Amino acid sequence: MKLLSTLTLTTSLLMASSLMKEAKDAGLKPIPSSQTELLKLIDNPNNPITDAKIELGKKLYFDPRLSKSEIISCNFCHNLGEGGDDGVEASIGHKWTANPHHVNAPTVYNAVFFTTQFWDGRAKDLEEQAQGPIQAHPEMAATKEHVENVVNSMPEYVSEFQKAYGDNVKISFEKVTDTIGLFERILVTPSPYDSFLNGEENALTTEQKQGLKTFIKIGCTSCHTGVGLGGEMNAFNITATYKYMNVGDFKGDKNGMVKVPTLRNITQTAPYFHNGKIWSLKEAIKEMGRIQLGTDISNKEVNEIETFLKALTGTKPTLTLPILPASTDKTPKPDLN
Amino acid sequence: MKLLSTLTLTTSLLMASSLMKEAKDAGLKPIPSSQTELLKLIDNPNNPITDAKIELGKKLYFDPRLSKSEIISCNFCHNLGEGGDDGVEASIGHKWTANPHHVNAPTVYNAVFFTTQFWDGRAKDLEEQAQGPIQAHPEMAATKEHVENVVNSMPEYVSEFQKAYGDNVKISFEKVTDTIGLFERILVTPSPYDSFLNGEENALTTEQKQGLKTFIKIGCTSCHTGVGLGGEMNAFNITATYKYMNVGDFKGDKNGMVKVPTLRNITQTAPYFHNGKIWSLKEAIKEMGRIQLGTDISNKEVNEIETFLKALTGTKPTLTLPILPASTDKTPKPDLN
Repeated sequence: MKLLSTLTLTTSLLMASSLMKEAKDAGLKPIPSSQTELLKLIDNPNNPITDAKIELGKKLYFDPRLSKSEIISCNFCHNLGEGGDDGVEASIGHKWTANPHHVNAPTVYNAVFFTTQFWDGRAKDLEEQAQGPIQAHPEMAATKEHVENVVNSMPEYVSEFQKAYGDNVKISFEKVTDTIGLFERILVTPSPYDSFLNGEENALTTEQKQGLKTFIKIGCTSCHTGVGLGGEMNAFNITATYKYMNVGDFKGDKNGMVKVPTLRNITQTAPYFHNGKIWSLKEAIKEMGRIQLGTDISNKEVNEIETFLKALTGTKPTLTLPILPASTDKTPKPDLN
Repeated sequence: MKLLSTLTLTTSLLMASSLMKEAKDAGLKPIPSSQTELLKLIDNPNNPITDAKIELGKKLYFDPRLSKSEIISCNFCHNLGEGGDDGVEASIGHKWTANPHHVNAPTVYNAVFFTTQFWDGRAKDLEEQAQGPIQAHPEMAATKEHVENVVNSMPEYVSEFQKAYGDNVKISFEKVTDTIGLFERILVTPSPYDSFLNGEENALTTEQKQGLKTFIKIGCTSCHTGVGLGGEMNAFNITATYKYMNVGDFKGDKNGMVKVPTLRNITQTAPYFHNGKIWSLKEAIKEMGRIQLGTDISNKEVNEIETFLKALTGTKPTLTLPILPASTDKTPKPDLN
């Protein structure tokens, strides 16, 4: 019995090690377990992370006064208490306007690992992305001037910007969005899957390992790759035969392609696809096989892949709810129209 | 010099002590500095505070899925990062509907000290209050069944209710709102003013003490009294000559009276009055003198009172942003219409 159990263990170790190699060969990469390595991966060389900038960025992220109505913050559509998104098909913004292109709010968690931002990849990083929704009319509907006037109207914000960037800082719209983007860079969620890829054989269950094998075998890793398991390429052809292809007027990038979304925390980010038309994870897996891989993924394989995907649920950073500076007589008034 | 400075100190101590007595005689009471005393004051005898209930109540407070659209949480209008309110005249809710009576969202901070809830005092406590906005059509617009179905669809919530209330708990709408109300009971913000009334002579500056004297002398304490400096009576006659009296169709209580709001954190809760029509604190002070006390408060006195009111800005509890349970296949879908 002793011998048998040792043998079983050795076999299982060998299998796991070989799976680890297979996963890496397929382009999968873990969130580094070393904080130094992680910082290298997520930092912005043009605006290095400091505690002062992150604390300030968090406040701005949660501050609804940046919007025209002053009641919609970044967190409204990218809710950090949920999956970093809003759980509706197409986000609702200023004046209850649904996103006119009917695109689904992507999660902000682990978005730092994407090589481009937005569903068509039109922004190069989180800092550039942050400029979009604040100004978009169906989202936060603010002007650059509104944002600058709001922030500059509160001495507490001015002092925090000075602490973060030096006394001569000019608090421009771009400085605000750069700081929000920087805060978003720390929103990473290491999971059992990462522990496994970082060498912890037992971080995944046997079932999850089987799921990972199937995930690789089916070919999911041809798009869902890298640290983000997505976010590295535009690969979904929006004109492919697809039962919900005519929802909204979103056309993808110039080639009609849509960015591959991350699979991290996928059980928390329904509904799925760029137009949010699929609510069931099983259906999403099945549809992707059909559309992208020309494969009919069997129910057994769908279940296996789903089991693996659950191992991508990570630990979210513990955030203290920021207490925002009080408005002053100089703060612009909300405009609900 | 030594003697003079001792004399000055003694005089100032005597003055402060007499002011402390004067304030207490005028009905002003501090938030107790003893945690035991505070707990006695804020606890619900029918549902005593425990850590498990508070953590659960916090999640529910921040969970937008309790609303019909699943994007509006309690925190949307009673934002704990702001003044416990939303900073607009009349709250915006489901489908961007402004409160049809044009009433302003009162702060949830220190609301536990009010003897009744809502502007007309129609709810007896925070637990009863919490039932209102969740169901009100222009606010969260949910049915009781929606709330029950949402919470019961997530095993993590069910398990937390069991931890809080025992394995046989029935997760009814009322259990949910009772738990939210209980969480709201801990949202108290002790301020320099409380330290002063609790015996710390130097907690208030000379200017703030002068302001407190003026506040009492003018008669503000006839309504702004108790621990809440408000919330203990309906005293504002809505039909009094008042430049904004015809905004909205809110009629006050059966006697046409409106509840006295708290003055705690008043610099963070503009706009003011039940209809949110006054944005300037100075104007609010002046108007109250005119309408309620029949007094023309001089500009000097307005400034003094405002200086005192700033000492009511308290320290908010440090809250960790709750990570909400993930929706499941059983969770009702959002309804944005």
